[in-house]
Amino acid sequence: MTNKTTSTNTLDVPLILQEDLAKVETIIQERSDSELVDRINQVLLHIFGSGGKRFRPMLTLSAARLLGFEGKTHLNLAAAVEFVHTATLVHDDVVDQSKQRRGKPAANFLWDDKTSVLVGDYLFARSFQLMVSADSLRSLAVLSDASATIAEAEVLQLVNQNNSSITEDAYLTVIKGKTAALFSAATAVGGIVGGGTDKQIKELTEFGNNLGIGFQIMDDLLDYEGFSSDLGKNVGDDFNEGKLTLPVILAIKQADLEEKTFWKRVFEENIIIEGDLDNALAILQTRGIIEEVRTQAFAWSEKAKDCLAELPNNQITTFLRDLADVSVARKS
Amino acid sequence: MTNKTTSTNTLDVPLILQEDLAKVETIIQERSDSELVDRINQVLLHIFGSGGKRFRPMLTLSAARLLGFEGKTHLNLAAAVEFVHTATLVHDDVVDQSKQRRGKPAANFLWDDKTSVLVGDYLFARSFQLMVSADSLRSLAVLSDASATIAEAEVLQLVNQNNSSITEDAYLTVIKGKTAALFSAATAVGGIVGGGTDKQIKELTEFGNNLGIGFQIMDDLLDYEGFSSDLGKNVGDDFNEGKLTLPVILAIKQADLEEKTFWKRVFEENIIIEGDLDNALAILQTRGIIEEVRTQAFAWSEKAKDCLAELPNNQITTFLRDLADVSVARKS
Repeated sequence: MTNKTTSTNTLDVPLILQEDLAKVETIIQERSDSELVDRINQVLLHIFGSGGKRFRPMLTLSAARLLGFEGKTHLNLAAAVEFVHTATLVHDDVVDQSKQRRGKPAANFLWDDKTSVLVGDYLFARSFQLMVSADSLRSLAVLSDASATIAEAEVLQLVNQNNSSITEDAYLTVIKGKTAALFSAATAVGGIVGGGTDKQIKELTEFGNNLGIGFQIMDDLLDYEGFSSDLGKNVGDDFNEGKLTLPVILAIKQADLEEKTFWKRVFEENIIIEGDLDNALAILQTRGIIEEVRTQAFAWSEKAKDCLAELPNNQITTFLRDLADVSVARKS
Repeated sequence: MTNKTTSTNTLDVPLILQEDLAKVETIIQERSDSELVDRINQVLLHIFGSGGKRFRPMLTLSAARLLGFEGKTHLNLAAAVEFVHTATLVHDDVVDQSKQRRGKPAANFLWDDKTSVLVGDYLFARSFQLMVSADSLRSLAVLSDASATIAEAEVLQLVNQNNSSITEDAYLTVIKGKTAALFSAATAVGGIVGGGTDKQIKELTEFGNNLGIGFQIMDDLLDYEGFSSDLGKNVGDDFNEGKLTLPVILAIKQADLEEKTFWKRVFEENIIIEGDLDNALAILQTRGIIEEVRTQAFAWSEKAKDCLAELPNNQITTFLRDLADVSVARKS
């Protein structure tokens, strides 16, 4: 395992994918537009204008192009994937009462929760319209399955909140559902429209799944050791919301009596006082947990790359390997 | 125009539809089940167990059977339609901060807004899974279009809230989107899987659209002149939320200076004092607005029935005519 530190900036995106992504941006703009309701457009301009890595649509585009696909269907599916993702973000921000998203005020904060709930629904519906226009029932099945899995995992995460006896397995179930399900659906539908064999589609699906798990583990780590300005959202959100993620789950497993009392106060009793986040971070560092979590994330990234072994080897495959590296080496 | 007063209880549902509906209930139960998250099942047991008229799935079943359909696909689509409807109800209750639904405490009140947002998403996803299993891209197009239209109209309704200069036209745009769109999609997909001609599908769509408009106008009237116990939700909700519906829009049009001040205080300044709802009701009665709104609802119901003229004339057609009568003669 090589802990490469390729950053997103140095990522070499093949021209064909750059061109595809530009077209996807146009589709996102055109297909999210509401002729009837200006507020929807204002909210979506704010959300889509705030950037975002477009990681998931990139996966759909890559999977299709990797297989030599020359058509256009993958563009609509890539946009549909980003719509599903954005819908879940908008609803997540309501659920978590987030104030920041992608370095800007969250939509629920700028408008209100009601607007965010309904605009999220609008995006879900628009995503399915896009899928329909891609004319692939098999892709629709994959993406509607993923959407159901995401919602299930989000409820599970809610149920697990403030329960400090959550295991690593339970954590994995949540992140597989809330994150990896859409990553793997994104690669799968790219493979499907790209005309892949069942075996290739399975390998692409597994690639997305492993990548998504690594990505989310890194995301959860960054919530402790990242910086707000890089991350575009607040550091310590999970800590403040009582959301048990891998760093804390590992820390609780190793905790001495004093630490146990600390974690219990924060995560079960919901009592957080000044200096607690710093204290948590100090424990994570002292006990080597930051490194342990990073190592786990890298392992998933490596596992993802292994799934590419029998797929065609071209510039897109190289790009996907780089993407797997970047997804766990990123700072935001 | 005959103001028939058929009640839901006296509605003669053809045996074939009763059997279909029983199968749809089974599909609803089976396909909403979450193996992973018990809370989802608790919430859905509460929601689906609270009854509901199953008006929309009945439309899908009727449209298919009217055309002599003998297959099973209409069952999945009928369940999908009810899932979309239920998802919007669950989210509506969050948006409106409702305490009651179908005579029981609303889910957001029993659990919390977060759970309701996510369970609504889960139902949306499950509805699309059901649509996929019905294997009809054309139906999927109709239902995803309807879902987008509903969300748009819901945002529009939110934007229009507390604006007492809303016109009848603006009101119609909202109810066509939030209610009639799903009624017409429900009949349309029944017609599509039922193998209808384009002309028949169009007539069924128009039937659903007119029916939905009449249904919603009556719903909005019942929010003033109904009784909580019949309605299963609170009377006066729209009034208290500053939601301008047809009765108030017509009342404002006819208002004298004193009444104008009253409506403005309630709907624009959001100042509601004891006795206001009684006062509103008295104005609606004195000015003959209750009757005027009822007449409008009946007119839409008649218009709906006219759309059936060139469709096959059988026991299902008779049932749909009765349904159109009942939809505007109901007390809940």
